[in-house]
Amino acid sequence: MSTILFAARPPLWDEYETPLRAALAEVELGDADLTSEADPAEVDYIVYAPNGPVTDFTPYTGLKAVLNLWAGVEDVVGNPTLKAPLARMVDDGLTEGMVEWVVGHTLRHHLGMDAHILGQDGEWRAGVVPPLARDRRVAILGLGVLGTACARALAALGFQVTGWSRSAKEIEGVVTAHGPEGLRGALSGAEIVTLLLPNTAETENTLNEESLAWLPEGAVILNPGRGPLIDDAALLAALDSGRIGHATLDTFRVEPLPPDHPYWAHPKVTVTPHIASETRAESAARVIAENIRRGEAGEPFLHLVDRAAGY
Amino acid sequence: MSTILFAARPPLWDEYETPLRAALAEVELGDADLTSEADPAEVDYIVYAPNGPVTDFTPYTGLKAVLNLWAGVEDVVGNPTLKAPLARMVDDGLTEGMVEWVVGHTLRHHLGMDAHILGQDGEWRAGVVPPLARDRRVAILGLGVLGTACARALAALGFQVTGWSRSAKEIEGVVTAHGPEGLRGALSGAEIVTLLLPNTAETENTLNEESLAWLPEGAVILNPGRGPLIDDAALLAALDSGRIGHATLDTFRVEPLPPDHPYWAHPKVTVTPHIASETRAESAARVIAENIRRGEAGEPFLHLVDRAAGY
Repeated sequence: MSTILFAARPPLWDEYETPLRAALAEVELGDADLTSEADPAEVDYIVYAPNGPVTDFTPYTGLKAVLNLWAGVEDVVGNPTLKAPLARMVDDGLTEGMVEWVVGHTLRHHLGMDAHILGQDGEWRAGVVPPLARDRRVAILGLGVLGTACARALAALGFQVTGWSRSAKEIEGVVTAHGPEGLRGALSGAEIVTLLLPNTAETENTLNEESLAWLPEGAVILNPGRGPLIDDAALLAALDSGRIGHATLDTFRVEPLPPDHPYWAHPKVTVTPHIASETRAESAARVIAENIRRGEAGEPFLHLVDRAAGY
Repeated sequence: MSTILFAARPPLWDEYETPLRAALAEVELGDADLTSEADPAEVDYIVYAPNGPVTDFTPYTGLKAVLNLWAGVEDVVGNPTLKAPLARMVDDGLTEGMVEWVVGHTLRHHLGMDAHILGQDGEWRAGVVPPLARDRRVAILGLGVLGTACARALAALGFQVTGWSRSAKEIEGVVTAHGPEGLRGALSGAEIVTLLLPNTAETENTLNEESLAWLPEGAVILNPGRGPLIDDAALLAALDSGRIGHATLDTFRVEPLPPDHPYWAHPKVTVTPHIASETRAESAARVIAENIRRGEAGEPFLHLVDRAAGY
């Protein structure tokens, strides 16, 4: 019977305990001792998150692996007391949730759903049929794991997808552009544009007064990426002038978005509370359970971190 | 030289004449006599839509086929004066538009978008994260061309899809059920159910008081199929009681839906004005021209209706 120490802050234990027990049972490790407190010498696996109780791994003399709860391992990868293998979280659930949010809101704007959801006035407006996806041009800015998955899903539905990233990428069925010189072309053909760039000094205010003007009249902006990608004042001005048709925003410079922020009250803005890229306890728990199953079966761990490279 | 009678209301003639002439020229039938008025005895093909000038096919003594302009054939299939083969419309554009509507509204309800679209009240409701599509069970009733395409598209996004049809079908990645005995099982696992059955005596009121009770509490219904598939009074009662969470309806027993119909005012109903399955003139015209080419070449017609089955 394995002993699995959940070493993270107590609210995470509340969130993860049930999914982890279920996931362990699914891989026939339901008898494992999953606990938030254990004698270090008896611990086989540590499920690790930053700011938890474990900083010194020395007493964990029988440790088989440390399984990081998040994708980023910067808090633990350099810990000199850690000798056991370290695995990062690679959660398909996060990618899937992002694809669902982006495809869903793209189709919402493509189909003009809001007019129906908000306008049930008894008037049958026949003949106002949206174009097909094959006649709709959309763009994804940022072609990492999330952006690439969204671009592929939209292309599979028939949309004309342009993807833009800092360096050149190729994605089947997607027109790609790159570098500062490629951005204007990508935006000028985008009726619906989704921001999935990382948050760096270079990407701050990617959508600003100048680049917003490159978009076609009435374009829609989706931002499930990072708040600082948009110059908020420039976006509000473009919405007010009618240049931009709508913005559906999931990420903000300050979260929670303050109740008096103009985005909340703006008729052309939909705020969602950072739900597009949530790590799901259920899917993350399955990844951890699968790695413990592998450890117990003598199979290689998934998603091992290269400690020398640091990721 | 064939005589092709376009038998539909005049606005459709205005819409279809140019695309039909272009499509006939594409299959080298540019010399065909395409007309909205002809001596019945000379007509080879009728392009048919409901509420047009032809109700009695008896005078059309040389008729080779009737080519329906829409997917649904309920207005003509039972006409005892029709002896010639009857083909339905199977239009790629129609299929694509249907997939976009069904996937879009499925994701809308899956993601709980309405709460955001209608509820921009300044309150940041963190932690209300929808389940992933892989944990969402949806059903498609009807596995014809449209239902099958929708089932595949939803399965590609990760949804747990059950498809139900009158006779047994197999679709990769989709659990299928069939016959009256399979319906209860299909509905009992469906959090979002889409109706894409043909309109026949057998399918009328497929969703009635009894079958609505098989759905899980709070289930959502999408009806882009045909109005008579639903017992409207039973649906309204199930919405009022809370058993059914929402209905998004695109088709109705009477269209346009009268302004005083309770669906318009019901807070749990979204009416869309029969836009999910709009035939696109350009692509539909190509399907009709191809069938006329086949008739003239002595090849079998595409998309023939089984008159006995009614679809």
